[in-house]
Amino acid sequence: MTSPVTPQSEVSIDWVKMEEWDRKYYIHNIYGQDEYNPVFVSKTEGRHFYLKDGTKILDFMSQLISDNMGQRHPKIISGIKDALDRYGHVSFAFTTDYRAKASKLLIEDIIQEDWAGRVRFMSTGTEGVELALHMAKLYTGRPYIITQEHSFHGWTTGAGGGCSRLRGYANNLASPTDPNSYTDVPGFPTPGYYMIPAPYCYRCPVGHTYPDCKSRMPGGKLPCLLPLEHLIEVIGPENIAAVITEIMFGGSGIYSPPEYIPQLREITKKHGILWIDDEVITGFGRLGKWFAYQLYEDVFPDLMVIGKGLTSCALPSGGVVANKEIGEFFDRQRWWSGSSHEGHPITMAAIIANLEAMIEEDIVSKATETGKYLETQLRELEPRHKSIGQIAGAGMFWVVDIVKNRETREAFVKEDRNSMRAGDLSHWPINIVLQKCLEKGVLLSGFTPNTVKIGPALTSTREEIDQGIDAFDYALDELDKMCD
Amino acid sequence: MTSPVTPQSEVSIDWVKMEEWDRKYYIHNIYGQDEYNPVFVSKTEGRHFYLKDGTKILDFMSQLISDNMGQRHPKIISGIKDALDRYGHVSFAFTTDYRAKASKLLIEDIIQEDWAGRVRFMSTGTEGVELALHMAKLYTGRPYIITQEHSFHGWTTGAGGGCSRLRGYANNLASPTDPNSYTDVPGFPTPGYYMIPAPYCYRCPVGHTYPDCKSRMPGGKLPCLLPLEHLIEVIGPENIAAVITEIMFGGSGIYSPPEYIPQLREITKKHGILWIDDEVITGFGRLGKWFAYQLYEDVFPDLMVIGKGLTSCALPSGGVVANKEIGEFFDRQRWWSGSSHEGHPITMAAIIANLEAMIEEDIVSKATETGKYLETQLRELEPRHKSIGQIAGAGMFWVVDIVKNRETREAFVKEDRNSMRAGDLSHWPINIVLQKCLEKGVLLSGFTPNTVKIGPALTSTREEIDQGIDAFDYALDELDKMCD
Amino acid sequence: MTSPVTPQSEVSIDWVKMEEWDRKYYIHNIYGQDEYNPVFVSKTEGRHFYLKDGTKILDFMSQLISDNMGQRHPKIISGIKDALDRYGHVSFAFTTDYRAKASKLLIEDIIQEDWAGRVRFMSTGTEGVELALHMAKLYTGRPYIITQEHSFHGWTTGAGGGCSRLRGYANNLASPTDPNSYTDVPGFPTPGYYMIPAPYCYRCPVGHTYPDCKSRMPGGKLPCLLPLEHLIEVIGPENIAAVITEIMFGGSGIYSPPEYIPQLREITKKHGILWIDDEVITGFGRLGKWFAYQLYEDVFPDLMVIGKGLTSCALPSGGVVANKEIGEFFDRQRWWSGSSHEGHPITMAAIIANLEAMIEEDIVSKATETGKYLETQLRELEPRHKSIGQIAGAGMFWVVDIVKNRETREAFVKEDRNSMRAGDLSHWPINIVLQKCLEKGVLLSGFTPNTVKIGPALTSTREEIDQGIDAFDYALDELDKMCD
Amino acid sequence: MTSPVTPQSEVSIDWVKMEEWDRKYYIHNIYGQDEYNPVFVSKTEGRHFYLKDGTKILDFMSQLISDNMGQRHPKIISGIKDALDRYGHVSFAFTTDYRAKASKLLIEDIIQEDWAGRVRFMSTGTEGVELALHMAKLYTGRPYIITQEHSFHGWTTGAGGGCSRLRGYANNLASPTDPNSYTDVPGFPTPGYYMIPAPYCYRCPVGHTYPDCKSRMPGGKLPCLLPLEHLIEVIGPENIAAVITEIMFGGSGIYSPPEYIPQLREITKKHGILWIDDEVITGFGRLGKWFAYQLYEDVFPDLMVIGKGLTSCALPSGGVVANKEIGEFFDRQRWWSGSSHEGHPITMAAIIANLEAMIEEDIVSKATETGKYLETQLRELEPRHKSIGQIAGAGMFWVVDIVKNRETREAFVKEDRNSMRAGDLSHWPINIVLQKCLEKGVLLSGFTPNTVKIGPALTSTREEIDQGIDAFDYALDELDKMCD
Repeated sequence: MTSPVTPQSEVSIDWVKMEEWDRKYYIHNIYGQDEYNPVFVSKTEGRHFYLKDGTKILDFMSQLISDNMGQRHPKIISGIKDALDRYGHVSFAFTTDYRAKASKLLIEDIIQEDWAGRVRFMSTGTEGVELALHMAKLYTGRPYIITQEHSFHGWTTGAGGGCSRLRGYANNLASPTDPNSYTDVPGFPTPGYYMIPAPYCYRCPVGHTYPDCKSRMPGGKLPCLLPLEHLIEVIGPENIAAVITEIMFGGSGIYSPPEYIPQLREITKKHGILWIDDEVITGFGRLGKWFAYQLYEDVFPDLMVIGKGLTSCALPSGGVVANKEIGEFFDRQRWWSGSSHEGHPITMAAIIANLEAMIEEDIVSKATETGKYLETQLRELEPRHKSIGQIAGAGMFWVVDIVKNRETREAFVKEDRNSMRAGDLSHWPINIVLQKCLEKGVLLSGFTPNTVKIGPALTSTREEIDQGIDAFDYALDELDKMCD
Repeated sequence: MTSPVTPQSEVSIDWVKMEEWDRKYYIHNIYGQDEYNPVFVSKTEGRHFYLKDGTKILDFMSQLISDNMGQRHPKIISGIKDALDRYGHVSFAFTTDYRAKASKLLIEDIIQEDWAGRVRFMSTGTEGVELALHMAKLYTGRPYIITQEHSFHGWTTGAGGGCSRLRGYANNLASPTDPNSYTDVPGFPTPGYYMIPAPYCYRCPVGHTYPDCKSRMPGGKLPCLLPLEHLIEVIGPENIAAVITEIMFGGSGIYSPPEYIPQLREITKKHGILWIDDEVITGFGRLGKWFAYQLYEDVFPDLMVIGKGLTSCALPSGGVVANKEIGEFFDRQRWWSGSSHEGHPITMAAIIANLEAMIEEDIVSKATETGKYLETQLRELEPRHKSIGQIAGAGMFWVVDIVKNRETREAFVKEDRNSMRAGDLSHWPINIVLQKCLEKGVLLSGFTPNTVKIGPALTSTREEIDQGIDAFDYALDELDKMCD
Repeated sequence: MTSPVTPQSEVSIDWVKMEEWDRKYYIHNIYGQDEYNPVFVSKTEGRHFYLKDGTKILDFMSQLISDNMGQRHPKIISGIKDALDRYGHVSFAFTTDYRAKASKLLIEDIIQEDWAGRVRFMSTGTEGVELALHMAKLYTGRPYIITQEHSFHGWTTGAGGGCSRLRGYANNLASPTDPNSYTDVPGFPTPGYYMIPAPYCYRCPVGHTYPDCKSRMPGGKLPCLLPLEHLIEVIGPENIAAVITEIMFGGSGIYSPPEYIPQLREITKKHGILWIDDEVITGFGRLGKWFAYQLYEDVFPDLMVIGKGLTSCALPSGGVVANKEIGEFFDRQRWWSGSSHEGHPITMAAIIANLEAMIEEDIVSKATETGKYLETQLRELEPRHKSIGQIAGAGMFWVVDIVKNRETREAFVKEDRNSMRAGDLSHWPINIVLQKCLEKGVLLSGFTPNTVKIGPALTSTREEIDQGIDAFDYALDELDKMCD
Repeated sequence: MTSPVTPQSEVSIDWVKMEEWDRKYYIHNIYGQDEYNPVFVSKTEGRHFYLKDGTKILDFMSQLISDNMGQRHPKIISGIKDALDRYGHVSFAFTTDYRAKASKLLIEDIIQEDWAGRVRFMSTGTEGVELALHMAKLYTGRPYIITQEHSFHGWTTGAGGGCSRLRGYANNLASPTDPNSYTDVPGFPTPGYYMIPAPYCYRCPVGHTYPDCKSRMPGGKLPCLLPLEHLIEVIGPENIAAVITEIMFGGSGIYSPPEYIPQLREITKKHGILWIDDEVITGFGRLGKWFAYQLYEDVFPDLMVIGKGLTSCALPSGGVVANKEIGEFFDRQRWWSGSSHEGHPITMAAIIANLEAMIEEDIVSKATETGKYLETQLRELEPRHKSIGQIAGAGMFWVVDIVKNRETREAFVKEDRNSMRAGDLSHWPINIVLQKCLEKGVLLSGFTPNTVKIGPALTSTREEIDQGIDAFDYALDELDKMCD
C-alpha cells in the first residue's frame, strides 16, 4: 500500500461532518444503508485518486472505463476555466463559437470519414442513446428497436428499461440487503424493444463453438445472428427502426468476434434498418482506434452515440453523430425537441480541450501501443492462474472472465451476468479482486460477478500498467485458491 | 436598440468560419436548415448576453426561465474553478465532500422542512424526472403514471414521450419546413402513461368558469379534478405509481388555481399514489418561494424533481428529492442504477456555490419583492392592450395569453398549445413579440404560439424590469393592430 | 311464486350427479366455490325458463339483454335443424348459400341504408369488437383506440383489457371471496387504448348538470366531449384509429343524452377517426329501432359491431358491418386473418331464421310499442319509491339507478360501477332486487351494484311486462326501507 | 375427377343470386375482390363435400385439420337436434345438465389423468387462448408471455397480435392484390409478448443439425432452447406468466423433435412459469393420442387450450382445461369475466355427442392405426419425388416441406413462412398442389407457401387415404418438373 500523503487543498475539510451528511442526505445506489461504507475521494490527478486519509490509488479502470485522458488534464482544466470567463448558459435557441468548434473538431478532425454528417450534443451518454432512438424512429417512421442480451445503454426509460438488458442495471432493479429478494421496476421492459443473443463466444448463447461455428453455416455466417434475421422477418422489417449494439459491451465485458458487426451491418442494411453504434465506452481511442467501428473495414454506423471519452468525463456530456443521409433528413425538419443543457458552452469547452489534447498527444497511437503492452502482460498471467477463464478485448479495454474450473468453464457465481445481486456479494470474484487490488493501491473490479474489467486511462505509463497487472496477479492468487 | 460594443475576449474569433461550421456540422432542432439563421452569442454577463457583433441583449426569459442567479455569477464561477483544482471525475462508487455538502445544503438549509429525506443528483432535469419515475414505480410496486395535458417534463422516452403532453415538444415531433406536414415519433406516447386535463381556467378543459366552478361542486371541489378521480378508479389505484405535475407549466405557461394542487395532493394521498412535483422550472425561488409547493399550506411532495435553478444552469444538473419514507425505502435497497456523471464533483461545486449565493443574497425575498414590481408593471399594460387575454403567474414567472378578441377569448393561432408547428410561423404572437422586443434589445418570447413567458433572472434590477416591460409594451402595440 | 311443473323431457336427468359434476369439473366465474350454489336451468321456452325442480321463471332480462326473439323461437329451431341436414363445417376458404343469404338479409333487408357496405361474421360479439379494432387500425394505418369509462365491449385482450373500462368485467378481475382483496390481470390495461368520460348525466363526470350544461358552451356542445377533443389533439389525430362507444352501455346501464353521439360523430369525422358503434346489445330492435344509431338523424357508423340479437343467442354469433368505403378498402386486400368458425353454416342458418322471424313479426314496431308500455309502467313506480334515483332507456332496455337518498343521489354501494366486487355483496341493490323478484317468479337484476337493468325479450306480452313490473315494485318496497 | 351428382336438397337454390350476394355483401379475407372466385359448397357428408354443381370432393385436410369426426356425424347431429328441443340460451349465471356432462366427459372420461382439474368452455379456440392468457397472468401475478416463431394461436389482440408469430396470419396483415405491397396492423405486435425460435430442425433457427445438436450440449440439451433460458433470465422469471406452444404447429406445419417439449416443460417448471399447451389442432386424437402432450412421458400442461376437435367443428367451440392447482386458485375467486355464449347449451350438446362418438368408435386407436397407414403411403412417395424436402408428423397430421433442391434444401418460395403473401401466388407449391389435387377430386393444400398439410378426418378409410395420396402423388409430379 502506498503511503498516505494528504494534499494541501483538502487539509481543512471536516471529513467527519462530510460522512455524516453523506450518510444522512444522499440516496445511495449500489449499497443499502446498513452495508454502506462511504469511500471519500479527496483529490484526483492523472491516473490516480486520493482518499481522505491521503491514500493514493492507481485507477486501473479510469473510473468507469471513462476518463480516457486521465484526471484533471491541464489542457482540459484550462479550457473550461477560459470558457467560464466568457460564458454562463446559452440555450439551443442560440449558438456559440464553442459549439461550432466542438462539432467541427469531432466531424472533420477526429472522425475524418465521409459517412459522418452532423452531431448534436446532449449531457450524458444515456441522453445520447435516447436521442439516437428518437432519431432512428423519426427517420425510418418505424416504432421498434432491437437490442442485445447483456447490453447496457443507459438507465432511463428508453435507454435503460428498453434497450439495456444487463440484469440489474438494465432495469434499475432494487434488491434489499435482505438475501434472496429483489424488486424489478414494474413495467420493465419498456414495450417496443426486442432482444437478440449477445455474441459471447466463450459461452455461446446458441450452443456453438467459435470459430468452428462459421464453417457450419453457408457463407461463414455466424449462427448467433440467425435470431436477428428471424426476429426481423417475423416482426417485419417495416416495423423495426434500429438495432443498437455495443461492439465491446461496456457493462458486461463481452467482446464481439470480428465477423459479428460486419455481418450485423449487412443484415441491417438489407432491411433498411438503422444501426446505432453505441460508442459511449469504446469511442475516443479506447479500443486503439478513434472509434470501435474502425476495427472493421467498410463498416460505418448510421447513428453513433458518444459520451464518456468525449470530455474524458471532465464534465458531463454525450451526443449523437448522424450519417449524412440522416443529417440531411433532420436538415429538412423543424425538430421540436430541446434540453436546457444541450450544447452548453462550458461543456463544449471541455469537449474542445479534450479533443485537442487527444489530437496533440496522438492518443490513438499511444492507446494502441500501451494497449499492446497491456495485452502482453495480461496474457502472461493466463498460464499461471487457473482462475482465468478467458481474456478478451482490444486497445486499452480488456476483460477477464474468472472461472472456478477452466475445463468446464464453470463460473464462481452461477447466474453470472443475470445475477439478482441480492444477498452476500463478498464472494463475487470482482469483489475479491477489488479488495486484494486495493491492498496494493490499485482500483480494479467489474460490474458483473465474474468479469474483471481492465480499462486504465489511455495516457497510462508502462509503469502504471505494471503496477496494475501486479495487483491483479496478486488478486488472482487468491481466486486460484478457490478454484476446483 | 442598444449600441454594439464588442467585448475584448472574443475579438479574435473568426465568426464566418464559426457560422460555416455550425451550419455544416450541427444538427439544429427547432429550425430547418433552409430557414436557419444562427444567432451567435459571444458572451454572457448577469442578465445580459452579447451577440457576435457586440449587440447587448437584456434576457427577459433568463434563457429558458432557467438562469435564476443570472449569468456568470462570480461566486459560482469561482466555486467551479476551485473544484477544478482538486477534482476531475469521481464515479458513484465513491463520494466527495462536494456531494455531501451539496446534499446537506439543499435538504437542511434550503428546504428546511421535515418532509424531505434524501437527494440524488443527476445531470439534467429530464434525468431527474426519469429517476423520479423509476423511484415511484419501485417504491409503490405499481406500473402506471398519470400526467397532465400541456405538461412538459423532459424529452426522453419516459419524461418526454411518456409524461410530457405538450404537442411537439412532448414527442420530439419533426415538422418539415414544408407547410402542413409533420412526423410524430412512431410509438408515441410511450405506453403506461395516462393524461388528465390541465387546470387552464382561462379556457376550462371541462367547460366551467373559475371560481364559479367550485360552488357547483360539493366541498368546493374543482371539477377539472374529476377526471383524475375517475381515471384512478377505473384503471385501479393499485396500478398507478404516481401523478406528476407542474404547478406552473414551464413549457405551456399555465398557472394552477390555488385549490388545484392541495386537492390533487389529497386525492393522491387517499389512494396511496405518489405525487411527483416537477420543480425544474419553478424551484429555487422562481415563484417567490424556494419551491412552488410552498405556495400552499401543508402540501408536501413525495418526490420533487429539480434542475435548472439548482445551478442556475452554470453547469448541467438535475436531481430528485425524496420524502423521508421513500428515502428510507431506498436505504434498505441496493439500487442497481448508475450514471457516469451523477454526483459529478464539478457539478456539485456549481450547486454549492449557487445555493450559497442564493442564501447569501436572500434571493427568495428578492424574487418576491421584484416579482411584485414586475406584476404591477405587467398589469398596468392590461387596460391599454386589447391583445392581452390574461396575465397569470407568481414571483418572477409570468405568462400573458395573447388574444385576437378579448371578449370571445379567440386566439391568433387557433390550435394554440396543440399546434403542429408546421408551415409559416412568423405570424405567431410569440414570434412577433420576439422580433419587436429584439428591436428594443430585449429577449422575450414563448414556447407555444399565443403565450408569452416572462421569466427574468431573480437578480434583476427594477431598471431591467422596466426595460423589459417597455419592450413588451412596444410589441403589444403591434399585436393590438391585429386584433379584431 | 308460480307452482313447479316438471317438463317431460328432463324427468330422467340425475340432477344430483349433474350438480356433483358441475361443482367438481367446471371453472365458475362470478362465484367462488365456497359460495357457489348452482342454479340448474332445465328448459327454456319463449320468455321463460324452468329450474330443475320445475319452477317457471319469467326472464325480465332476456338472459343478458340478449335473447331478442325470446327462447327457442320455432322458426329459428327449425332453421337450424334444416341446416344440420345439409351442412357440417365449411371453412372460410369456401362459401355457402347460407352465408350469402345472411349477408344479404342483414345489409339489404334489415339495415336498408346507403352507408352499409359489407359484413363479416365471427362467433361472438367480443370477436366482432376484436375484428372491428383490427379493421379500424388497418384502414386508417393508425394504432390507438379511444374508449369510454364504464364501457364493456368484451373480455379478450383488445376488446376487454383494452377497450372495456367497466371495473371488474373490464379486466377479468379476480376477487377472492375473502373480503377486501382482489387481483387485477397483470398488464391491464392493454397499451394503446385511451379513455374518455362516460356521458352519465345523472352524476356528471365533469361536474355539470344536463341539459343546463349545453347552454354554458358555444354551439350547445356537451362539455363531457371536451376531454375527447383534448385527447385527440394532444395524442394527435394521426395516431388514433377509432373511438368505440356504446350508445346505451350494456354492462353499466348508462344511456347517452341525445346530443352526445351526434356530436361525437362530428368530432371523429373532423379528424378522420373512425367511429365504431358497438351495437352488440342495442342492435336488432332492442332500443325500438333496428339499431341504436338510428335514434339520431344522419348519424351513421363507420364500423358497427353486432352480436347477441343477431341470432337472439340461439347460437353463438357476432360480426362487423363496414361502411362502403371501408368495405371497398378490404375489397382491395388479401386479408390474412381467419377463424375456423367464421361464417359457420349452422350459425348462418340461425342468423337467417332469426332475421326472417324479426321481419315477419315486425319486431321493431312491436319493441317500440311494448317498450312504450314498459316505460309507462316503470315511470309509474317512480313517485312511489324513494329508492328510485333515475329511470333511463329506450325501447325494451331500461335502467333504474337505485339510491339511498334521492336528494343527494347517494348510492347504496358507494364505489358504484367501480366496485371491486370483493367481500359480502348481499346488500347490493341488484342482489336484493334479484332475491325479491325471484320470490315472484321473475328474473331481474343488473351487473353493477346500484343499477337494475330491465331488458325483456322483444316478443314479450303486456301481461309479462305487468308481471315483471309487479315483481320490481315488490323489490323496491324492500329497498325503500333501507333509504335515508 | 369424380362425376358431378347434384344432391336433392339444394336443387332449388338460386346459385347465381347467391354468388351475387356473396360478392356484394361479404368481406372476404384471403382474396381481394378482383381475384375472388367464390367456391360454393352445397353440402357436406363424412369426409366429403359437394360443390354447387354437384362435384364431390374428398377433404384430405378435414377443412382446417379440424373436423376430426368428419362432417355431419349422425350422433352429433342428433345430439344437437335433441338439445334444441329443450334449450335456447342459458347464460353463465345459470348452469345446465349439458354443461355439467360435457365437463365430466372431458375431464373424467377423455383426459383421465390426475393433473387435470377443471374446464371452462368458450366459443372458439382463439377465445380459449385468450382465456388461458388471462388465467396464466391472474394465477402467476406476472404480465408477460413467451411464444414461438411461426406459431399460430388465434387472431385476436392477445392470441393473434400478441402470441401468434406466423407472418400474415399472426397480425391480420392486409396485402393489396397489387404486388409487393402490404399493410401491417399498426401496433403489431401487442406489447408484452416475447418470441423464441421454433424447433424447426429441417432448417435449424440456430444453425445446428438434429440430432447431432444434442451431443454438442451438456445433458443432451437442445440448443434451440437456449434462447428461452436466456430470455427468462434477462427479463426475469418473476415477470413471465407463461410459455405458450404448439407441439405440432397448426398454421406453419412444424413438428417438434421429441426432446423439445419435455425439456421446455422442465425449464418452465424450474422458473414457476406456466406452460400453456395449445391443443386446438392437435387435441382429440389428431396425433394418435387424445392429446399431443401424451406423446411424452410425465409431461403435463398447466393450461391446455382446446377447440376444433372438441365438436369436430359441428358448432363453434373452444375452452381451457386447468391443472388442479390452477383450478383450485380459481375456486377461491370470484372471477369477473363472462361471455354471452360461454357454456351455451347447444354447443355443450355438440361437445357431448362428439366426445361420446369418439369414445364409442375408439377414435384414438383408429387414428393411430390409419395414421400409420397414411405415414407408410406418404413415405413411399419420398424416393420418387425430388420435390419432397422432408416429411414430418404423427397420427393423422402430416406435413411435407416442398423444396426446389433436395440437397441445398432451397425452397420454391424463399421467404417461406415469413412471406408477405403479396403479388402473384399461383407459383406457390401449396397452390399448385391445390390445383392438381382438385383435378383428382381431392382437397389438399397448406397455409404457408412450401408446406403441404395433410390432415384427413380421423374416421377416414384406407381407400380414402389411397385416393388422397394418389392425388398428392400426381401433384408432386408437377412440382418435380420445377425442381433444379
